[in-house]
Amino acid sequence: MTQDIVILAAGKGSRMKSSFSKVLHKIGGTSMVRRVLGTAAQLDDTQLHLIVGHQGEQVEQACQDFSANIVWQNDPQGTGDALRRAAPSLSDAGATLTLYGDVPLIQQSTLEQMRALSTPNTLVLLTIHLENPHGYGRIVRNADNQVMAIVEQKDASTEQLAIQEVNTGILLAPNGKLKAWLDALTNDNAQGEYYLTDIIAMAASQGVEIVTVQPEHEWEVAGVNDRVQLAALERVWQQQQAEELMRNGATLLDPVRIDVRGKLTTGQDCVIDINCVFEGSVSLGANVEVGPNCVLKNCTIGDNTIIKANTLIEDSAVGESCDIGPFARLRPGTELAKKAKIGNFVETKKALIGEGSKVNHLSYVGDTKMGARVNVGAGTITCNYDGVNKFQTSIGNDVFVGSNTSLVAPVEIQSGATIAAGSTITKLVAEDQLAFGRAKQMNKDGWARPTKQEK
Amino acid sequence: MTQDIVILAAGKGSRMKSSFSKVLHKIGGTSMVRRVLGTAAQLDDTQLHLIVGHQGEQVEQACQDFSANIVWQNDPQGTGDALRRAAPSLSDAGATLTLYGDVPLIQQSTLEQMRALSTPNTLVLLTIHLENPHGYGRIVRNADNQVMAIVEQKDASTEQLAIQEVNTGILLAPNGKLKAWLDALTNDNAQGEYYLTDIIAMAASQGVEIVTVQPEHEWEVAGVNDRVQLAALERVWQQQQAEELMRNGATLLDPVRIDVRGKLTTGQDCVIDINCVFEGSVSLGANVEVGPNCVLKNCTIGDNTIIKANTLIEDSAVGESCDIGPFARLRPGTELAKKAKIGNFVETKKALIGEGSKVNHLSYVGDTKMGARVNVGAGTITCNYDGVNKFQTSIGNDVFVGSNTSLVAPVEIQSGATIAAGSTITKLVAEDQLAFGRAKQMNKDGWARPTKQEK
Amino acid sequence: MTQDIVILAAGKGSRMKSSFSKVLHKIGGTSMVRRVLGTAAQLDDTQLHLIVGHQGEQVEQACQDFSANIVWQNDPQGTGDALRRAAPSLSDAGATLTLYGDVPLIQQSTLEQMRALSTPNTLVLLTIHLENPHGYGRIVRNADNQVMAIVEQKDASTEQLAIQEVNTGILLAPNGKLKAWLDALTNDNAQGEYYLTDIIAMAASQGVEIVTVQPEHEWEVAGVNDRVQLAALERVWQQQQAEELMRNGATLLDPVRIDVRGKLTTGQDCVIDINCVFEGSVSLGANVEVGPNCVLKNCTIGDNTIIKANTLIEDSAVGESCDIGPFARLRPGTELAKKAKIGNFVETKKALIGEGSKVNHLSYVGDTKMGARVNVGAGTITCNYDGVNKFQTSIGNDVFVGSNTSLVAPVEIQSGATIAAGSTITKLVAEDQLAFGRAKQMNKDGWARPTKQEK
Repeated sequence: MTQDIVILAAGKGSRMKSSFSKVLHKIGGTSMVRRVLGTAAQLDDTQLHLIVGHQGEQVEQACQDFSANIVWQNDPQGTGDALRRAAPSLSDAGATLTLYGDVPLIQQSTLEQMRALSTPNTLVLLTIHLENPHGYGRIVRNADNQVMAIVEQKDASTEQLAIQEVNTGILLAPNGKLKAWLDALTNDNAQGEYYLTDIIAMAASQGVEIVTVQPEHEWEVAGVNDRVQLAALERVWQQQQAEELMRNGATLLDPVRIDVRGKLTTGQDCVIDINCVFEGSVSLGANVEVGPNCVLKNCTIGDNTIIKANTLIEDSAVGESCDIGPFARLRPGTELAKKAKIGNFVETKKALIGEGSKVNHLSYVGDTKMGARVNVGAGTITCNYDGVNKFQTSIGNDVFVGSNTSLVAPVEIQSGATIAAGSTITKLVAEDQLAFGRAKQMNKDGWARPTKQEK
Repeated sequence: MTQDIVILAAGKGSRMKSSFSKVLHKIGGTSMVRRVLGTAAQLDDTQLHLIVGHQGEQVEQACQDFSANIVWQNDPQGTGDALRRAAPSLSDAGATLTLYGDVPLIQQSTLEQMRALSTPNTLVLLTIHLENPHGYGRIVRNADNQVMAIVEQKDASTEQLAIQEVNTGILLAPNGKLKAWLDALTNDNAQGEYYLTDIIAMAASQGVEIVTVQPEHEWEVAGVNDRVQLAALERVWQQQQAEELMRNGATLLDPVRIDVRGKLTTGQDCVIDINCVFEGSVSLGANVEVGPNCVLKNCTIGDNTIIKANTLIEDSAVGESCDIGPFARLRPGTELAKKAKIGNFVETKKALIGEGSKVNHLSYVGDTKMGARVNVGAGTITCNYDGVNKFQTSIGNDVFVGSNTSLVAPVEIQSGATIAAGSTITKLVAEDQLAFGRAKQMNKDGWARPTKQEK
Repeated sequence: MTQDIVILAAGKGSRMKSSFSKVLHKIGGTSMVRRVLGTAAQLDDTQLHLIVGHQGEQVEQACQDFSANIVWQNDPQGTGDALRRAAPSLSDAGATLTLYGDVPLIQQSTLEQMRALSTPNTLVLLTIHLENPHGYGRIVRNADNQVMAIVEQKDASTEQLAIQEVNTGILLAPNGKLKAWLDALTNDNAQGEYYLTDIIAMAASQGVEIVTVQPEHEWEVAGVNDRVQLAALERVWQQQQAEELMRNGATLLDPVRIDVRGKLTTGQDCVIDINCVFEGSVSLGANVEVGPNCVLKNCTIGDNTIIKANTLIEDSAVGESCDIGPFARLRPGTELAKKAKIGNFVETKKALIGEGSKVNHLSYVGDTKMGARVNVGAGTITCNYDGVNKFQTSIGNDVFVGSNTSLVAPVEIQSGATIAAGSTITKLVAEDQLAFGRAKQMNKDGWARPTKQEK
């Protein structure tokens, strides 16, 4: 039975003080509304409906790959109003799950539990017990423990105020009943809005069974109204990631100082030092060590590789037993074969580095294919750009590039060649040749040192 | 009516184990005593008095711009003694507010509340309710809820020990009464000190009205006696800054990993990643992104500029839509026009960089004026120093500087010029010229590679 | 009287999901089992026994410098089984203290307290009161407050479940009794294991006095079963280090963002900024400032030296009043005389830098001895490696090395010499000589700029 899932994402979110829709703000690197869509999309046999309004084009565009049915709510008049606008698109049979674009961490398992209880004559409500329920709608039950109504804070009796079970706003209602309930909603209230929660009382009065489910974690139902709450949920999310990594066998030197904004997978016995950030899809092999303050984005790291402090890696593939950093920056298109070494103050980009080759210090290697066992001296620059075009540098195996060398691309250095330090190389160096391009040293006696000039 | 504000800053603070006066230790980049002076100075129509003693010269010098009346308390004998020494300088009318140089986070709003209640016949006491009042002087009230006395922990009855309202030490007393009370203080106690709190009982016995004010936050009245407490208040301060930034619309990836030591202002939709430090006065435009581990000090950053990981900026002005870092260091006197780009392992100092110009890698650009659309190749160095003097480098528009170039200042590269890679440039390059200063490449066949030497 | 100390380290630790023995995982840079051995070794007149089993060779090898008696427990059958295997090695007189390789933070002072109570007729038990004792063995006492037995959670009566005093597993038993008790242990229980705690009831029934000691801190008896617990204890350890540093007079900008993995000592008024890591033995003089994100390992730093952000120092000795970083990397064998300056993007290795000498930018100085007052220009590289051998560079006093210079070792630059910018220096430069090795600049008019090529 197809399930409709309506995600409310039309709200203004003025407390965010943003030019972007509230639901586009991110948790763990993914916008809140995409998190909710992603969780919803994991359920089988569903039709997604996305209610957009304020900055709706932004939201629509950001979510278009989900193929959700976009429903415009240009003049939002409450949660009930949102559902009313979606109603024509809802299936006749089935049931509708209502989620919120600013309640980003709802878990699939919780929704599955709700779904398991759904019948054509059952309304499933997600509720939670709060230490301090102040401000939330209380779940009122009768003597038989049946849910009778949701009573808002301001309307609650003293007795009702003591109720700690509150409404989360997430519910699953049978479509066969829901459409009529939505039609019956009124906006006779202080805000002049249509409240979805009003259907609870309708359901109760019609003898529809109301069952409740509780989420495993309180944060699953936490909403975001400002950036303080956004940051708080970001930390909740990061704590979950950290715990999962540790339970899977990674050592985190400080679980509150790791940020995973995407998906990080780790082999056995990885050690991740303080303050690292992982973005996109990052895969670490076994026994990988990541030093402090590294940022890794969309990359794979082979077994036994060591990444030292303050290293940045992006869109790159690093082989086994490599030694990288500190202060290295591997830019997109870097591929390191095993046992390669990239040292301090070295930048690589579109660079294939062969097995055991070393670029240890203060170099820029870009648009380059390098063989095995090459040693690149400190201060070496591949001059790959003439101001408008980029050119390739090709280096064979067993090449020795002296320090402070400029390799002016396009240029080829064949296997076994040696480049003298301080050279500018502009043309082919054949196998086993020594190339130099530097002036002879001249010493001049009695040099008068400069003296301090008047300003 | 002028208000005297006496700030006690003569204490020894031996638990700090410091060669500096306790009150000179910093919270949020500003010494504690300067924080208190700064807050006091925001009140209208006041005269500041600063009581100094231990390391008093340090304190006096550090605070001289506040033009406070310096009162020496060389042989401190308690809080009452401090006030007695200040007494001759206090106005006859008005009232005296007593603050403490080691209670740094008292808020102006709290002091304003106290002041609003001040009359010639009223003593205003700042009190606070503590969960655990142990060790503090309890506020004893009579049946009419009037304050009668402050009873110290050791003198308190069992009943009094249960009182949770305690004395903060901060009080505002009418000068018309205060001087007589100070004269009447004795040091008949175990410590042989004169306690300011003894005036409370005098006031009560004389029928002076004693009114109380409570601070909004407990941390306003927290004192610092050692570096553990200093660090704790530092964190309180930083949490306040972080919350204010978020409420104003900045996204902080982790609110407990940002340090603001001065004043940070942010435009709409700024995003600040983990572990950044802001010092002095820093202003971010709209949509500015600051990557992880950046340190920004006294600088302005234009709208839409991106600052990547591990970037340091000091005393610089960055325009709109610039792209900076990672691993960039902008030293004092750097000014970037819009769309400029400063890349990895690049240092700038007293450098004006024109619109759209790029210094992408491994370069030092100092004492330089550069036009628009210039491309500076990797490994370029402006040789601005001859060991005693600094010289200027001037670069026009649309210049292309090849990699590994040395520009020996003073030197001028005119618009449209091209410098070949690996060149050392010591004299003028005119418009649209190509300059090169490098040796011709020579290749030598059959080069015998070095072999391992015996040590 | 010699005391036997038996440390149990044979467990499998499957929840660590590691290829290493659980007890080899580290807290504060030292493996857990080495921490326990280290604490035990501080007690006088002891014989250490280390029980190994799973991955026992790893453990034995990692601990061999402790000269502990290694006892193999290849098929572990409980704590009692471990002691039984050690029994033949235990002295006849004396007493045996049982510790655990995965309870790493037990303090010497606690063990001393236990030891002080030990007699031939006394069993000393370390117990602790827990807020939530669930899962732990409860300490059952009789009406005279004498310990009668330890009752496990599953065997406890409702009344016993309310007991908050629990067994820590650490105990000190007189050898004259212990051996018989161990012989009497049975494995008649669900797990089929021999439980050391069963000796308590035996001791009680034999009228042996059972006395209890409580540790000062709950974390002393916390065990590690997975990496979540490992990380939690790591944080406890780091918090202890931070507090001790602050109490000793160091300012920590954020006590939860410092990692000490070894021993850090600080002189008066050191200031350590956020996110620093200290490894091995690090000693800071007085008034040393360490900026954000620095990593210091096995080094000494002289008084008044400033280490700026993002600096890495390893196996180096830094003198007084030096100025290092930001973005500097001092590798092993670096020694800086006083007032030396190492600036941004500079790497040193086996480098002796004389008083007041400066290497300010983008340089690599390796295998070098440099005199005083030398100025090394930006982009200078010591070319110390020919692909197989390393060579020395020697630089006298008052040398000026121009920017972008390559010094091809072995080479000597004598005092007072000047090297022109952009030079490659391959042979001796004598005193006060000017050396240059660069081509003359040529300018060519009407240079046609490259145009965009078709791809």
